[in-house]
Amino acid sequence: MLLLHLTDVDEEGWAEALRATLDGYPVVRRGDDYDPAAIRYIFVWKPEANAFVGLTGLKAILSLGAGVDALLQHPALPEAPIVRFVDDDLSQRMSDYVVAHVTMHHRLYTRFHADQKARRWRQLYPPAASETTVGIMGIGVLGQDAVRRLKPLGFDLRSWSRTPKSMDGVAGFAGAEQFDTFLAGTDILVNLLPLTPETTGILNSDTFAKLRRDRLAGGPVIVNAARGGHQREADIVKALGDGTLGAASLDVFETEPLPATSPLWDIENCYITPHVAAISNKKSGVRYFSGIIARHEAGDPLINVVDRERGY
Amino acid sequence: MLLLHLTDVDEEGWAEALRATLDGYPVVRRGDDYDPAAIRYIFVWKPEANAFVGLTGLKAILSLGAGVDALLQHPALPEAPIVRFVDDDLSQRMSDYVVAHVTMHHRLYTRFHADQKARRWRQLYPPAASETTVGIMGIGVLGQDAVRRLKPLGFDLRSWSRTPKSMDGVAGFAGAEQFDTFLAGTDILVNLLPLTPETTGILNSDTFAKLRRDRLAGGPVIVNAARGGHQREADIVKALGDGTLGAASLDVFETEPLPATSPLWDIENCYITPHVAAISNKKSGVRYFSGIIARHEAGDPLINVVDRERGY
Repeated sequence: MLLLHLTDVDEEGWAEALRATLDGYPVVRRGDDYDPAAIRYIFVWKPEANAFVGLTGLKAILSLGAGVDALLQHPALPEAPIVRFVDDDLSQRMSDYVVAHVTMHHRLYTRFHADQKARRWRQLYPPAASETTVGIMGIGVLGQDAVRRLKPLGFDLRSWSRTPKSMDGVAGFAGAEQFDTFLAGTDILVNLLPLTPETTGILNSDTFAKLRRDRLAGGPVIVNAARGGHQREADIVKALGDGTLGAASLDVFETEPLPATSPLWDIENCYITPHVAAISNKKSGVRYFSGIIARHEAGDPLINVVDRERGY
Repeated sequence: MLLLHLTDVDEEGWAEALRATLDGYPVVRRGDDYDPAAIRYIFVWKPEANAFVGLTGLKAILSLGAGVDALLQHPALPEAPIVRFVDDDLSQRMSDYVVAHVTMHHRLYTRFHADQKARRWRQLYPPAASETTVGIMGIGVLGQDAVRRLKPLGFDLRSWSRTPKSMDGVAGFAGAEQFDTFLAGTDILVNLLPLTPETTGILNSDTFAKLRRDRLAGGPVIVNAARGGHQREADIVKALGDGTLGAASLDVFETEPLPATSPLWDIENCYITPHVAAISNKKSGVRYFSGIIARHEAGDPLINVVDRERGY
């Protein structure tokens, strides 16, 4: 039996779609009449404190999100394996966001917008994409998809990850000891890291000061499409104000929704979107999770299982 | 002998670089002491009225720009073949601009920027790239390069050209009779046409009203990276104001520099850049034109010759 526990999401719609696809396999929702001990799978988004009470027969926890940092903080998380959402549609949407913001900054949007407001015609030729280095932090499924989209645009690409990873046409850097070298050649820094204790607050003043300064007019740029916990917003405000950063595109925030009192809203070279970079699409999500359940019931091992030690 | 006649460009720098590459072949500039009848090639940008006087031995006119619409209007243009600039670097820069503006509109930049100014957190998920159709007008060297960059991003692509052209993965439309069908399925219209009598003013109210309206929140979008002569700016002002267009990215204008009195400057959903989409790079330009001269002197036919009848 599959239990849905989806907060702030159309749980009813997901239940209908999963029932239609799972072909007789029982699907229940919170509030339905069922025996907790009969639940083998729980499909969660923002689980409440009592979400897992009585689930003594649990075989897997299915996470609607690609990031499981919040789920791992749940005070009563069972030991069952956690399967996170890995999906081409979600990866494509994330890359859509990354490419849009990388290219707008590469083409010096901030500068031309300021000129437009002043009715000023000042020609300045942006560097070619091949003269601009995009540094991607996190080179898992999402980082690799971003590489696949950015590469044909001609950008010079480099990546930074916890452990060394090699991708064709991407200069790979890994670990704390190579972080500064990675930053020193990066014009546009894209964050797609999982949020773990090691990566919390990685977008801070120290990091910003180490980025390459002589390539992009206006200064280096950050694009955060991962988690608000990666960024120190007070440091971003300071860096955008004093020129350490030329611009920042932020889709995520320390507190969401971003409070109306945040100084970020009013900063001209800060580009805010309300956590919409990637969405878990229902159609592909249903296909993915019903496949996970069907294959596991047939005896296959689970895929995309979270390593709790590592945190993602 | 090669004569340089480059207005508003670093003519001296080009002369030095061409001399260094042409290996003894004589290069002169306006004002130098030379016999006009000895000039076999003239390399031009914005030629003056008397540019071609006395050039009785001319074998080719070399155009620094990819577009030759202005050159073809010269009242004393000789009959010699015109070679236009075709260059990977120029194509890449043009595609850089096109991709940056297509993706910013696909990701609903105008909507999120308005929300940011109002300190408003309103989630709205942009369509996936695969759900968005980019229609490219003009599928020559620049249009093909834009396709090559946009395709890996996942966009649905279609093209419109004077005569039928087929490109892998692109729905091709051609001629006046297929123009409306082309527009009816287009969310983001990119203009890369040559400017000819047939294409002058093609970005007008009639065209805008035929674009697809139900896909991109805010309405369809135009991106003009070709020539100001393609657009009717009064129509653009009207369409941006009444919602016929959701946004416009314009790199070129009917009059350049865009006059300070133009209403376009103040329109929030109009994105102005000062004719910087693509630049003719000196390094690759010298390589290209010195190659043209060397091969032609060795007896090879000219390449990239303008068809004056067609206008490009």
